[in-house]
Order: sequence, then C-alpha cells, then structure tokens
Amino acid sequence: MRVAIIGAGPSGMAQMRAFEAASRAGEEIPEFVCFEKQSDWGGQWNYTWRTGLDEHGEPVHSSMYRNLWSNGPKEVLEFADYTFDEHFGRPISSYPPRPVLWDYISGRVEKSGVRQHVRFSTVVRWVDYDDAAEQFTVTSEDLPSGTTTSETFDRVIVGVGHFSFPRMPDFDGIETFPGRVMHAHDFRGAEDLAGRDLLVIGSSYSAEDIGSQAHKMGARSVTASYRTAPMGYEWPDGFEEKPLVLRFEGSTAHFADGTSREFDAVVMCTGYLHKYPFLPDDLALDSPNNVYPAGLYKGVVWQRNPHLFYLGAQDQWLTFNMFDAQAWFVRDLILGKIEMPPAEERQADIDTWLARFEAIETVADEVRFQVEYTGELIEATDYPMFDLEEVIEIFLAWKRDKKDDIMGYRDRTYRSVMTGTIAATHHTRWVDELDDSIARYLAPVPTDAVGAGAPRAPR
Amino acid sequence: MRVAIIGAGPSGMAQMRAFEAASRAGEEIPEFVCFEKQSDWGGQWNYTWRTGLDEHGEPVHSSMYRNLWSNGPKEVLEFADYTFDEHFGRPISSYPPRPVLWDYISGRVEKSGVRQHVRFSTVVRWVDYDDAAEQFTVTSEDLPSGTTTSETFDRVIVGVGHFSFPRMPDFDGIETFPGRVMHAHDFRGAEDLAGRDLLVIGSSYSAEDIGSQAHKMGARSVTASYRTAPMGYEWPDGFEEKPLVLRFEGSTAHFADGTSREFDAVVMCTGYLHKYPFLPDDLALDSPNNVYPAGLYKGVVWQRNPHLFYLGAQDQWLTFNMFDAQAWFVRDLILGKIEMPPAEERQADIDTWLARFEAIETVADEVRFQVEYTGELIEATDYPMFDLEEVIEIFLAWKRDKKDDIMGYRDRTYRSVMTGTIAATHHTRWVDELDDSIARYLAPVPTDAVGAGAPRAPR
Repeated sequence: MRVAIIGAGPSGMAQMRAFEAASRAGEEIPEFVCFEKQSDWGGQWNYTWRTGLDEHGEPVHSSMYRNLWSNGPKEVLEFADYTFDEHFGRPISSYPPRPVLWDYISGRVEKSGVRQHVRFSTVVRWVDYDDAAEQFTVTSEDLPSGTTTSETFDRVIVGVGHFSFPRMPDFDGIETFPGRVMHAHDFRGAEDLAGRDLLVIGSSYSAEDIGSQAHKMGARSVTASYRTAPMGYEWPDGFEEKPLVLRFEGSTAHFADGTSREFDAVVMCTGYLHKYPFLPDDLALDSPNNVYPAGLYKGVVWQRNPHLFYLGAQDQWLTFNMFDAQAWFVRDLILGKIEMPPAEERQADIDTWLARFEAIETVADEVRFQVEYTGELIEATDYPMFDLEEVIEIFLAWKRDKKDDIMGYRDRTYRSVMTGTIAATHHTRWVDELDDSIARYLAPVPTDAVGAGAPRAPR
Repeated sequence: MRVAIIGAGPSGMAQMRAFEAASRAGEEIPEFVCFEKQSDWGGQWNYTWRTGLDEHGEPVHSSMYRNLWSNGPKEVLEFADYTFDEHFGRPISSYPPRPVLWDYISGRVEKSGVRQHVRFSTVVRWVDYDDAAEQFTVTSEDLPSGTTTSETFDRVIVGVGHFSFPRMPDFDGIETFPGRVMHAHDFRGAEDLAGRDLLVIGSSYSAEDIGSQAHKMGARSVTASYRTAPMGYEWPDGFEEKPLVLRFEGSTAHFADGTSREFDAVVMCTGYLHKYPFLPDDLALDSPNNVYPAGLYKGVVWQRNPHLFYLGAQDQWLTFNMFDAQAWFVRDLILGKIEMPPAEERQADIDTWLARFEAIETVADEVRFQVEYTGELIEATDYPMFDLEEVIEIFLAWKRDKKDDIMGYRDRTYRSVMTGTIAATHHTRWVDELDDSIARYLAPVPTDAVGAGAPRAPR
C-alpha cells in the first residue's frame, strides 16, 4: 500500500509522526510520500518574506508576518507526545513568537527521522481517482527542475490547510485608493505603517492582531471596520472600530454610519478560501470556515470516497494536538486497526455531530464541541489522552484575559495540561519587545528587558 | 476537429479573430473554445487593483499598474486588419494610456462577435496528450462554481503570455527590510511613494518605467540598481543608477560599488518566468526571455508535438501585429492551408533561424530579426502585409527619442505604417498628466491641458 500526504505543515508532520510512532512500536506501516511545495517544512509556520507568488511562481503558502507571536496560549496546542518541557528543557512563556513554535514542531519530526519521506519544492498539480483500480494518480512537479511525474497511490491525505488563499472582497471605488491595499495573507510587518493611518477590514483574529501590531509599531491611527459586530476590546488611544466600509473615494473610506476618514493603507482581514486546486470537484472540500465542514466522517474521512482524508480542515480552537488526534485516527483507519464503517454508518455519525454543531450557541459551546471531538478521536487510538476539561478552562481564561487587557494578554501565563509545568514569565512585555527572534526569546533576562511584572498566578 | 485556445489576452484574441476572418471568407473552421481565467478579456491589458492572488485565489495575471502608458509607439503594434483610425475615427497620439489600448484590442474582437467562444473565469488545470488517440484532454475549473470538467481537443493553442509569473531573486538580508518589497508584477501605482526613497532593482523596461512613474508622482529619490549595465538615460535630478545590491541590512541597501543608502520601498524589476503550470514537462516551454525560444518551429509549433502551439512566447519588440501573424499562420496550419512539414524539415528551419538568432549583436539586429520573422509568417497567409522597413525605422527613432529625453519621449509622434496617418500631438504632456482615463484622453483639449508644445515632424 502507498499513501500520499499532501503538505508538510503541522498536519502532514503529525501524519508522518503518527506513522513513524507505529513503526517504532513494531507495526508494519505503508510506504508514504509527503509532497511539500515549500523548500522546508512547517507550513504556515515556515515564514517567508515573499508575498503573492514565490520564487517558483507558486502562490505563497504562509500568511505569517515577521513579528507574529502566538495569539493563544501554547498550553492549548501542546503535543501530548512531545511536550514543551521535553523540547526546550525548561519552562517558557505562554505566548511564544513564531520561530519558537516552528522550532518546537519541527524539532519533534526531526527527532522522528521522517524528513527522508518529504519531497520538498514539489507541488501536486492534479489528483485523479480510478474507480476500477481503486487508486489515485497523483501528478506533481519538481519545481526547481520543472519535471512532472504521475504515480499511483492507494490513499491520499490532504493536509494543505485553509488559511493560504485569501478571501478578498471587492469594494466600490477600491481601485481609486492610492495607497497599499493588501490582504492579511500578504502582510509581513508594520514598521512601514509608523506615523500612518491604517484601515483594517474585518473583526476576527487577523484584524485584531494586525491592528494591535500596527499600533505597537507606531501607526498614527488604526481603524477596524466590522460587518456584523465590533471586536469590542478596550482599545488603546488611536484605535477605533467602525461599521463596514461602503465605498472608497481616493484615500477616503466611507463607512456605514455615514462617517468617513482618510487612510494611508488598507489591510483586508477578510478570511480565507477552502481551495484545493489539485482536486477534481468530487474530491474537493467546499465549506465556509467552521468547526464542522460538511462531508467529513469524524472530521477527516471524505464521505464520498473514504480513501481520501483531510487533516485540519476545521476552523481551529485546538491546533497541533487536534491534528495529532486526526493523524493518529487516520493512520489507524489506514492500518485497519480501526474499521472503516460502511457509508450509512458514517453518515449517521456525521448527522449526530452535525446536530451538535447546529446546537452551538456560544463561543464556549464551540470550544467544547471541538475539544470533545478531539477527545473522541484520541479515545480510539493510542495517542496519549489529556485532561480535556482543563483545556477548556484555559480557553475561557484566555478569553477573559484578552477582554481584560488586549495589548497585555500575551504577558499572562498558564499551566501545562501535559506536564503541570507553570509557564515562565517572559523577560519582556510583548508590547515592548521589538526583537521577535528565538535567540532573543531564549536569552537569559536581557539587561534591557522590560519585565512583565511580578509573576501572576497561572490561570 | 476541436481546438482549445488557452488565454483570451492579445494572443488568444488574435487567434479567435483569425478563425472568424476565415469563416467570414466562407471557409470551414473547427469548433474552438477559449479558456480565460479572468472575468473579461484583454489579458495583460485587463487591469485589476488586485495583487498576488485574485478573488478566486488564482495568481493575478496582469502586471499593469493604473497609470501605465504604452512605452513604445502605437505605430509598431498596430493591427494591419483593424487600424487605430478605424477604431477611433480620428488620429490619436503615439503613446496612449492602458485603457485606450485595451479599448482598441477589445473593440476589434467585439466586432468579430467571438465573445461567445470564451469561457470566462475558467482556469485550465491540467492538459494531457494521448499518443494513441492523438488527442488532448483539457481539465478546467469554472472558478465561481468550482466545477471541474475534462474534455478532449485535437489541437491546443497556448496563449497565456509570459509576463505574469514574477522572477523574484533572493538578496542577503532582504527579510530584514522593514518597508514594502514587491515585484513589478504587483506594482499598481506610485502615489504612495511621494516623498519617499525608492529602490528599483533591474535595468529593463519595468525598472525604467516604474522608476520614471515614481519620479513623476513625487518620489523623493529613485535609485535603479543594475546587474550588468546601467540604462544610461539622462535621468532627472533625484534619479540615479547604482550597480547591483549585494545585501540589505534593515532599510539600508549595500551596493557592489561599496556605497549604501536607506530606502522606504523596493520594487524588483527582475523579469518573469516562462511558466505553464497546466502542462506536463514534455509539452511545457522552458526558455529565458528571448526572441527565439527553443523548440518552436516558426516560433509557434511545439516541435515535440506539432498539435500544440504557442503564441507570443517570444520576447517582444512587435506585439499585437506579431501575434496576428502567428495566429493567422497557426490557423492555416490547422486548416491545412499550410502544410505541416515533417519533423526533420521543421528542425532544419528551426536551425536556420537559430543561426540567425545567434548572430544577433545589436538591438537593431534583434529588432530586424523579429520584424523579418513576422514578415515571413505574414507572407504565408492572407494577413495584410505592411512595410516592414518602415516599422524598423520607427523602432530606431523611438530608441533615439528615449535617449534624447527619457521623461519626454511619450510626447513624440510617428506616422502609421498602415494608414499613413500622422499621430495627433496629445493635449497634455505625459509628465504633467495625472488622469490616465480614456475619457480624459479622448476629451477635446481640456482647459487645464499642459500641451506637448508645437507639433513636431513625425519620425
């Protein structure tokens, strides 16, 4: 049996780790090949200065900007089989910057020795399924040489993520705006916005985080424009929320409340598309960004063709450890350790979860939905179980901490669900830290550190 | 017989016009379908404010910026079968802005009634050739619905151009540059650069034109960095040329001559890739940007499979009328009016032209090479022949005019090779015109016009 894994981001890395763990435990595993468009792994966490199209003319995958720090506590994304303590050898803070998280997730798979299975700089162009042979043909291109190859696989696992293709709405008059207009996907840093007036369109995590970053880097003003409801945080001076932009007229944006204002730059934080340009329509997931995309048994098995799997296709409260739960579950389905139920049984299970999904009313409901979904997958495998209620508690504390201090929540600390370790209070407050490197992060307390104050009790 | 045309830019439009002209002349023509990724035709000339990825998450095709004016005289690109006089009904100037040229090329095919053959917002995902059946399978996606379709064609004509996928080199330290870093492909206007210091990397048309545009729009300084040789024009104050950037250190660029300077923005004018992501490697052209890409008989027939054609794959002195010559020639090969020679004969012809190509020493040689190549194709078809020597003369005059006044050459006028019409002196000098719309261009002399002075003798 041959398995193709498409994407060596957090999901594909989890899938390789899952197969390798089974192999180490003495089980026979299929041959697997992981196709990765970028020249290194880490997916979204593999930062690039490039925007738009990459050095090979492929759409840039990562939406990271150079100063990004985790916007959720690391305690809710920790691997159960490879803790932060194991990787770093000492407690670190709860909201690490990007390179620290990249180091953590890549450290695990480096130790697993699975790099040999990845074809880097190789993009999957097209996937076909042959009903008679029950096999996929995967056509890929080695980007440096341009060589195209078609080969057959028995199973395909799609782990390309869904935060790479920007959803970029049109606005009346936007073509007359003289400054830069970009999507959050192409935002790489806010230094250039110092002293300038920024409009962010959107009210979700990108708007919140890019707006905050611009404020931190000295933007003269930040205006966030929402469609349905404001984010509602206690924003610092110079940061305001406005209803939706109706139209642009040169550098002036006109809002739904009748007000208008001039801006130097616009960043559209308007979400992403589920897009799988290498899949025919009968294999391609098409869903809004939610915690229960349609057509996936246990959130991973393509109901119309159970030889095809998706990892991480959900909107995400949990991330790395949920991808693990999915990867372990998919592995065991492929190994036959978990039986693939017939279509009707799968549909009944989908319908049960769909009813729960439709009953979601609050953010807390949604968090619980996803945590319990993840728990169900873990129960079915040998992935280490952890205290799910404690994870939910951390999410709720995180929400309170943001409400309490949107520019300061990243200085808070929490307790690891996996090890009980209390996170370290970082040497510098997020709002004062201008060096986001891992070297600076891991350095002993620098002499110029602007401490996060007296340690607080972890939540 | 069924023919697929990929791309409804100037090349694909020429191909449809060619078929339609034959049909109007009473000939039987094959069924043809034109696949166009964008929602309208015009290709490169179909301006969009979007950058990077479009509303469907596809790579943005057009590299146009909103203020672009033709950088060559319209007299060298005029259609022989549809003149500027016929379209506009009166003389216009020699260097029109983008919307005027878009209007001209789309006006011709609107009149031809070929719009019905175009599947807009439809991207070709993959093309396969079946040797036994001698047919192509073309798999495409209707972008608004996500529907994928595979269908067979006997001939495929690739007219997607090769100025859409940026060639974006890496530079040591570029990831530390705090301002905007973009390729010319993503440049949409220079208003935002007023009062700022711009670095353009490159010494070809994009660097020359974007640098000039930034100067026109009030950039504090423009520095153009060359790899081999400076452009060498008499630049205005505030515009200088430097050798290659060796590295960046924050906002400072260090040049090969040991000097350094701080910049606010970088535009890489570093060229484009021949990239055909929908073609397997045995069908995909791979060439540097030159006037004689390898492997194309008469510059259009894919030597390894003469059922596949390329239009406009050359670097371009001539444009619209050369695409016409190619389209008419390809049409007549497909109709059997011109016989497709066997492979050895084609190769012998390729080798003859290759020898001429390799003997090119000067710019004038290269212009003559392309003009004579175009003439050879026209000779073989019923496309109206025109005075090729006169075209070469206009090219040489244009080169002299740029040397003479790089910020003023667009105010010069030439005489149509097709009609003998002397171009109108435009009501406003290029350097003073801030409204690039077709309405403004075609308006009678506006009261605020800053005239191009006394009419000069046409070249």
